Amino acid sequence: LEEITPEESLDYDNSENQLFLEEERRMSHMGFRCLETRRWVICGLIGFLTGLIACLIDIAVEKLAGYKYSAVKQNIEKFTEFGGLSISLILWAVLNSAFVMVGAIAVAFFEPIAAGSGIPQIKCYLNGVKIPRVVRLKTLAIKVFGVICSVAGGLAVGKEGPMIHSGAVVAAGVSQGRSTSLKKDFKIFEYFRRDTEKRDFVSAGAAAGVSAAFGAPVGGVLFSLEEGASFWNQMLTWRIFFASMISTFTLNFFLSIYHGKPGELSSPGLINFGRFDSDVSSYIPFESFIFFSFHFPGGVLGALFNVINYWLTIFRIRYIHRPCLQVMEAMLVAAVTATISFAMIYFSNDCQPLGQDNTEEYSLQLFCADGEYNSMATAFFNTPERSVRSLFHNPPGSYNPLTLGVFTLAYFVLAVWTYGLTVSAGVFIPSLLIGAAWGRLFGILLSTITSSQSIWADPGKYALIGAAAQLVTHACHLCFVLLEHEAHVCGLYDVHIKLQSVPFLHWEAPPTSHWLTAREVMSSPVTCFNRVEKVGRIVDVLSNTSTNHNGFPVVPGKICGLILRSQLIVLLKHKVFVERASSRLSHRKLQLKDFRDAYPRFPPIQSIHVSQDERECMMDLTEFMNPTPYTVPQETSLPRVFKLFRALGLRHLVVVDNENRVVGLVTRKDLARYHLGKDGLEELHLAQT
Amino acid sequence: LEEITPEESLDYDNSENQLFLEEERRMSHMGFRCLETRRWVICGLIGFLTGLIACLIDIAVEKLAGYKYSAVKQNIEKFTEFGGLSISLILWAVLNSAFVMVGAIAVAFFEPIAAGSGIPQIKCYLNGVKIPRVVRLKTLAIKVFGVICSVAGGLAVGKEGPMIHSGAVVAAGVSQGRSTSLKKDFKIFEYFRRDTEKRDFVSAGAAAGVSAAFGAPVGGVLFSLEEGASFWNQMLTWRIFFASMISTFTLNFFLSIYHGKPGELSSPGLINFGRFDSDVSSYIPFESFIFFSFHFPGGVLGALFNVINYWLTIFRIRYIHRPCLQVMEAMLVAAVTATISFAMIYFSNDCQPLGQDNTEEYSLQLFCADGEYNSMATAFFNTPERSVRSLFHNPPGSYNPLTLGVFTLAYFVLAVWTYGLTVSAGVFIPSLLIGAAWGRLFGILLSTITSSQSIWADPGKYALIGAAAQLVTHACHLCFVLLEHEAHVCGLYDVHIKLQSVPFLHWEAPPTSHWLTAREVMSSPVTCFNRVEKVGRIVDVLSNTSTNHNGFPVVPGKICGLILRSQLIVLLKHKVFVERASSRLSHRKLQLKDFRDAYPRFPPIQSIHVSQDERECMMDLTEFMNPTPYTVPQETSLPRVFKLFRALGLRHLVVVDNENRVVGLVTRKDLARYHLGKDGLEELHLAQT
Repeated sequence: LEEITPEESLDYDNSENQLFLEEERRMSHMGFRCLETRRWVICGLIGFLTGLIACLIDIAVEKLAGYKYSAVKQNIEKFTEFGGLSISLILWAVLNSAFVMVGAIAVAFFEPIAAGSGIPQIKCYLNGVKIPRVVRLKTLAIKVFGVICSVAGGLAVGKEGPMIHSGAVVAAGVSQGRSTSLKKDFKIFEYFRRDTEKRDFVSAGAAAGVSAAFGAPVGGVLFSLEEGASFWNQMLTWRIFFASMISTFTLNFFLSIYHGKPGELSSPGLINFGRFDSDVSSYIPFESFIFFSFHFPGGVLGALFNVINYWLTIFRIRYIHRPCLQVMEAMLVAAVTATISFAMIYFSNDCQPLGQDNTEEYSLQLFCADGEYNSMATAFFNTPERSVRSLFHNPPGSYNPLTLGVFTLAYFVLAVWTYGLTVSAGVFIPSLLIGAAWGRLFGILLSTITSSQSIWADPGKYALIGAAAQLVTHACHLCFVLLEHEAHVCGLYDVHIKLQSVPFLHWEAPPTSHWLTAREVMSSPVTCFNRVEKVGRIVDVLSNTSTNHNGFPVVPGKICGLILRSQLIVLLKHKVFVERASSRLSHRKLQLKDFRDAYPRFPPIQSIHVSQDERECMMDLTEFMNPTPYTVPQETSLPRVFKLFRALGLRHLVVVDNENRVVGLVTRKDLARYHLGKDGLEELHLAQT
Repeated sequence: LEEITPEESLDYDNSENQLFLEEERRMSHMGFRCLETRRWVICGLIGFLTGLIACLIDIAVEKLAGYKYSAVKQNIEKFTEFGGLSISLILWAVLNSAFVMVGAIAVAFFEPIAAGSGIPQIKCYLNGVKIPRVVRLKTLAIKVFGVICSVAGGLAVGKEGPMIHSGAVVAAGVSQGRSTSLKKDFKIFEYFRRDTEKRDFVSAGAAAGVSAAFGAPVGGVLFSLEEGASFWNQMLTWRIFFASMISTFTLNFFLSIYHGKPGELSSPGLINFGRFDSDVSSYIPFESFIFFSFHFPGGVLGALFNVINYWLTIFRIRYIHRPCLQVMEAMLVAAVTATISFAMIYFSNDCQPLGQDNTEEYSLQLFCADGEYNSMATAFFNTPERSVRSLFHNPPGSYNPLTLGVFTLAYFVLAVWTYGLTVSAGVFIPSLLIGAAWGRLFGILLSTITSSQSIWADPGKYALIGAAAQLVTHACHLCFVLLEHEAHVCGLYDVHIKLQSVPFLHWEAPPTSHWLTAREVMSSPVTCFNRVEKVGRIVDVLSNTSTNHNGFPVVPGKICGLILRSQLIVLLKHKVFVERASSRLSHRKLQLKDFRDAYPRFPPIQSIHVSQDERECMMDLTEFMNPTPYTVPQETSLPRVFKLFRALGLRHLVVVDNENRVVGLVTRKDLARYHLGKDGLEELHLAQT
């Protein structure tokens, strides 16, 4: 998560220059229909590929974890009789560390941006903060490989979070019809090569990811809405829903085939908590009360998680920033996880009779009598998803309170330590598992106190309530589980985003910021260009690394347009100079296509050679600048500027005086640096964008 | 539905004048917290009251319909033996007509805006079109009374649609802390007396209504999002969800008590289709195919519904515009409904044995043998909700195909005729019922053809699929049922909105409108005022009924502000004239409170007396105008203007030239008149706003 180092902002406001308008005006009604159809096709493809990836992750994790647990189980069984279980422990720890090492090496050395769940990065992307390499093919490959290793390596992580990032990368790739990494351009979907369009598809991809992870298309749509609602429109929502449906259907279809039940379609998402009988959804009023009271411990644990993890992250940023150290920490955590688990199982004497219906897949007998199994092992000797399922569904009496209490504590410590490691992993499942454990514990205690077995009979219900509360959530609708999960874990993500000083724009300006005006928040003086500008000056300004501006108002006195660095770079690359055009009649007119081809990796100014002669030439910007940039007067209040900026997804907002002369430029970082602190408005120091 | 006659637009952009800014700057951090708390309290109240209203409607309908059906049933049973069933028919028809008459009189004579479901009106309100009297207390009373009468009167309508309107009215009332109709001002929540804030609460109210109607809080949130997403933010969404939860909980709580099962909380919404066994949600692939193929007949029937109803509406606007005619038409439909139902039951010879578990509440034996009941009667001799439930849940063989076919046809005709009557009623349930009927029919036919009883055993499943398809829907998640219902029925609403020439702004400008610029779409010349303007001129301009402008740029040469008609009226009323202020030192400074007190029913200009002397005075607008209105250059393309207008919920957008001089004003109707027709862009004629 250290890798949220923004370089630039994204531009969700189209540059409506002459080239663009000409193209749009040339396009027929039929042409727009065609585009719309293509958008649907792309969303279908995004859903399909995202579903396939989820399927791949699921199967790989299941296979690898299966091998691992079988090996360890055999070993344990072998040594239980003769003594020497420490060898089993070492085997387990080594296996864990080996898996995690491979994953951590891939992430730390090859693509650090693939660390964590990727949700903060996608949040930032949809918000308009460009984080380098976040939607590249290589990132996807490392991410998928990494998450398989971390889950198979037994870390306290889930495989669901990374699906959101994976879906987003798939979307960014498919919608552009090419891969720059693979140097392959299919020459399709060229119209969609700009931030505005790409962003819509990335929302769809993220939604498809959520949908594949949780089997909840509606949840996917809600996730995307929450992150990008200011640009919402109806058709886009339907496309996002379509992508989500296709994604969960694809996963379901292939997983069902893999499980040998083709046609049954019983695996809609990566998590599957099994079916609850209807009792769970019909709480009696007193239980509603319990339900709400559960939010208190859930909140306390969550806050504790955030605080500890905050300090841990600061520690990591300060001391563990070299890749090899990061890999070693991950391996250490993996080994410790195995050790703690082993110790828990070893010292637990919670033996339960083996039932017919709830036979655990890797049930360990250990020191229990024949026909019994060690109940602690169902919690620890398992992938986290399976543990959650056991906590939800195993019949009353499957766990004793001490087991659950110790488990909650141990798993909490492990989860806090694990989150933020340089591995690809999600934090959703660990939260759920902790909640399920203390929820079930609470249910058992309650049943002991009240001893009215009829109502309090099923502690699995309390496990569910606890898991829900841990995510500040309403349990039945998974879409809301997710939405709320966001709201809660978001505290966590926000911590990480804040630590990185990312210029993340929230929904509204801080309420007490009305006394600030555009004049105070804007950057000035602004570097402006003339409509017809000398090439030398443009090159000099672009090369000036101390300012590194990305947008330039165009002015003969009054504001008459806005041109972007990326556009100027393309113009310089194609040498669209006035003298040249007049001397060579055959000079090809620059087209929108040239800008699209360069998108999104515009070359740096240093790579463009401009001769001394050319420096004396002039460049006519009229055709390429956006002739109608949004402007505000200097007296506009910060909330008003903020609203305009956020609602339209702007990157640059020109501040003008009464005479329409440029006096300043508002960018993302100018707005994002005001936060509401304890003592009112605070100004933050942010990374340059 | 004829009553969508907009007078004005709403202003979802705050007028940030000096008074407003001073107030905001004076307010402490604590003050904003306080406001936020109040918003939550209001949302809770909205949810609670909306739930109570839903409860009232439900109980009243059940009681009245119960009395009616009991009476008719007794009568039928009496005359079945002796002959003379025509008396039963007359009794039934008269009872129906009587109920409907009372409801129709209330609507037609006292508050015509309460006709229909009210969903188009709320859509318009959230979109920014102000329809007079739409959120008044009187409207609510008539609406609730009307819907009870229409449903009890046996019309082919549902009681769910009107809940959305009811919730919105409750929200508008509660959030303002006063009722102008009752002349009662609680002097609370004064801060929320402006369009922006009121609108947020109305969204919450509409959501609470949806939630109470369908028992789906998530559906409520989605409905509100869909209608007003351009102003969405996270806290607002949570408040909306809170209102929805409280609403469905309140309804559930009180209905459960009413049904004698306090604490069971088994009535989350007005509709309750019973519980489906899990089979329904696990389709096998071939059934998925069936599911999708069902959308075709659903779409055809829906389109047919829209076309017929379109012509019917035009006929009604032309010939049935007098209230007494409207009441008579409603009574006629009620009588015809009874007659058709009776005829169906009478001529049907579909006798089914009375089961133990599925005893119909008003099962009619009629000419069936003892121990049997007439199956047609379960479809017709019932409230539509119950009929839907029977179609979903009655065991295979409860209906024969002919019954269902005839029922579908008859009910379709009745529903088409009923929609648009001057009664308060919803169209959701009739659509569902038609879908359920042909779905079940289709299921039976399919099972006859394939004769593989194992898979096709449950025609109730097909009823569900049909109902879903009729609403172009995915059945399991009710939130999506609702969202899609919107998308489909919306065609219907859009027809009505279009017929009324309402300046409704869609999500985006038509795609082929890039060749239009602000210069072409704006209204000009614009009436401007000076910063210090003569009172006489202001009065003259405001009194000019031929222009009837609502926003005026303030200009000494260049644009320096925008002032609204409502603000000028308040200034005139309080006689804030420059000469006066200097002569009388004690003259009270006008405060924001004075504007809030006048909101939203500002007096007309005619009611304000200005003497000849006063006409010569001057008025200083500086403090009251919005000093930073949004402006665009003349060359801005229509889609760009549209995006700005829609995203910020503007009412006036000033078009300026290069020198910042006012050249035109873009209002809602300037943008709404461009539509995409068959041959490209079309210009519509719209009602003046």
